[in-house]
Amino acid sequence: MNTKLNLSINSERLLNRIQQLGKTGRGNDNKLSRVAASDADKAGRDQLVTWIKEAGLEVEIDKIGNIFGIWYSTQNRNEAPILLGSHIDTVINAGIYDGCYGVIAGLEVIKTLQEAGFVPTRPIAVAAFTNEEGVRYAPDMMGSLVFAGGLSVDEALATVGIDGTILGEELKRIGYAGTKEPGFLKPQSYIELHVEQGPILDKVGTPIGAVEDLQGISWQRVTIEGVANHAGTTPTDMRRDAGLAAARVITYLRDRANASNGKTVATVGTIEFKPNAVNVIPSLATFTVDLRNPNEKKLQEEEQALANYLKELAALEKVSINSEQLVRFQPVTFDENIVRLVEEVASEHGLQSRRMTSGAGQDAQMIARVCPSAMIFVPSVDGISHNPKEFTAEPDLVAGANVLLDLVAKLTEAE
Amino acid sequence: MNTKLNLSINSERLLNRIQQLGKTGRGNDNKLSRVAASDADKAGRDQLVTWIKEAGLEVEIDKIGNIFGIWYSTQNRNEAPILLGSHIDTVINAGIYDGCYGVIAGLEVIKTLQEAGFVPTRPIAVAAFTNEEGVRYAPDMMGSLVFAGGLSVDEALATVGIDGTILGEELKRIGYAGTKEPGFLKPQSYIELHVEQGPILDKVGTPIGAVEDLQGISWQRVTIEGVANHAGTTPTDMRRDAGLAAARVITYLRDRANASNGKTVATVGTIEFKPNAVNVIPSLATFTVDLRNPNEKKLQEEEQALANYLKELAALEKVSINSEQLVRFQPVTFDENIVRLVEEVASEHGLQSRRMTSGAGQDAQMIARVCPSAMIFVPSVDGISHNPKEFTAEPDLVAGANVLLDLVAKLTEAE
Repeated sequence: MNTKLNLSINSERLLNRIQQLGKTGRGNDNKLSRVAASDADKAGRDQLVTWIKEAGLEVEIDKIGNIFGIWYSTQNRNEAPILLGSHIDTVINAGIYDGCYGVIAGLEVIKTLQEAGFVPTRPIAVAAFTNEEGVRYAPDMMGSLVFAGGLSVDEALATVGIDGTILGEELKRIGYAGTKEPGFLKPQSYIELHVEQGPILDKVGTPIGAVEDLQGISWQRVTIEGVANHAGTTPTDMRRDAGLAAARVITYLRDRANASNGKTVATVGTIEFKPNAVNVIPSLATFTVDLRNPNEKKLQEEEQALANYLKELAALEKVSINSEQLVRFQPVTFDENIVRLVEEVASEHGLQSRRMTSGAGQDAQMIARVCPSAMIFVPSVDGISHNPKEFTAEPDLVAGANVLLDLVAKLTEAE
Repeated sequence: MNTKLNLSINSERLLNRIQQLGKTGRGNDNKLSRVAASDADKAGRDQLVTWIKEAGLEVEIDKIGNIFGIWYSTQNRNEAPILLGSHIDTVINAGIYDGCYGVIAGLEVIKTLQEAGFVPTRPIAVAAFTNEEGVRYAPDMMGSLVFAGGLSVDEALATVGIDGTILGEELKRIGYAGTKEPGFLKPQSYIELHVEQGPILDKVGTPIGAVEDLQGISWQRVTIEGVANHAGTTPTDMRRDAGLAAARVITYLRDRANASNGKTVATVGTIEFKPNAVNVIPSLATFTVDLRNPNEKKLQEEEQALANYLKELAALEKVSINSEQLVRFQPVTFDENIVRLVEEVASEHGLQSRRMTSGAGQDAQMIARVCPSAMIFVPSVDGISHNPKEFTAEPDLVAGANVLLDLVAKLTEAE
């Protein structure tokens, strides 16, 4: 069926819950820092579980602490569920939307369908994945990665945090070391509603992003070794200036990104010179490169182009250059059928939508390994993210949740 | 007269004294750190004064602690002296040649002339200027600056060091707060023999540098403010990347230096990004620019070109840029007659010479304010300076001192 459901989520409940979860677990400084498996995270989890129980859903916690609220009916108990969700852990001094919006909206969709007497052909579940942010324990997106079988649960639980704690012990301490094997649920599909965390939708005034893929990420640390020398007495043509070579890499990366028609983004976010003195030519420059592209072949081409350039540059500037891979994630292509359905539903709501790439890492990129997955984005004002100033206007939050509602209905109504 | 004097300095004495002064004042770590008005500096000064007294010269200390050894004769006491010299303070963990060579060679020239029964038409004096390096007390070249009237002695003595000490008190403590007014001596000319501290003479295999000028120095601190944003979700054309803008400045400066035919040198020696995270576009980049050119007009043109570029760049990259002057010294042109005489004497010795620019600051640039001045350079192997590896081969040290000897003889023989 392709008709628009004549239902709307309860916008007041949705918005209130976003605010309420945003107040939960704040410290004495009134900052929101609900890092994974902390007391603040426990407070957020307890609130979520209370809401799931209120909705009459079955609560399941798996061994990595992922929380599931599942709406079964007698008829559909043996069917693969539609899984909605995201995460409720946050970075330090976070905004209230990142992750939480997708979890609360998932639950809201279920409640709306329940209240309307909707009879889904398969179970509908909402998940809050553990430690998406990776602030306290690396890697990020850990709960969804373990759920999808990309990391063993034992290895994940043994992770030592930046504060010396062990994730498994902390999950026990806060009461969220569950008993279910991660992956106990086999979703038919996964849909994650999320704030964009980037400026595009806000800039172009489009309310719905139909996220078709997610950028691959390549992080490298580049170290350039030249020769320290006197800034006054060393002629230009005798210099082996590590700092200049670093600058050439930075401008090279930007020029290539410009030439890529927006598909490649490249960032040099950290840099250090040694000896770092006004009148000494740098002998050492160390910086990081963050390269992203939604196409694996293209991302490899970017990496290769950089490697080739570093080789040329080393000869040209008489410096030696080493590069070390820090992080590497392949791009993810989301399920074309679901993405098309997102566009269709948005259109039925009279909402403009736009195909997009997720520039940030997301739980959906992990779950995409085990079932057809996609994401829906709503605008982030000025693209501000990981910041208390993160903001999405209420009409946009409501519109996104209603698109999710109709999408779920379409995926679960009599086929 | 234009004939070569048939005298040579006592090379053994010269070289021994360079080694001996290089051993004086070393710390428990065996490093040479004879910073101004320290106990180590006192040890070096005491050694120098002993040598000056042994030579029968009159010792004078002025209020800023500059040490003078003056060879008067009854006939020339009322004439303006030829002044030789440099400094014997050092940087931290220094080599043994910088400064010391010029002082010891000056004294050696006087001794050689004395021993030969030479009768100079005017007094010949050697000076060791206080605090040339400026490591402990700013500014550098302080003793010669005060001597030349560029800074009042009271202001200089009140300087607070990086260790919280006051220069005037430290000079008293080590017994080198003299009573003579700085400038009590009115030189007829000043000649400073020095190691090049750069690679040119060593690279081209030329033993004598006839230093015709000294670069003007312009130091600026540039601060670029952009907007911190997510490295994955922010499209290239929406970035306001302070780090990229800093890199563009660095490559711009190098490209201009390349185009200047070697006259301009530009160095970015320090840099800092904020927040300095791998996946965050830098909101702030701070770096220093060290610009040098031996021609004041050209140096001003370089400063103006940089200012214009920063303006263009701010608009282009949508960042705001501020620049603050940290240091500004005008270039110095040395006395053409003396420079020509250096070339002539070198040639008489069968030594190749080369007109050069001093890229480093020197006492001679201050003394040039009060009398015709010039410098003679000898090679520094690989241009290494301010480093225990600083090295000049013995034949080069001897050749430089013999050129100084003949130059002084020419300037002081019956006119």
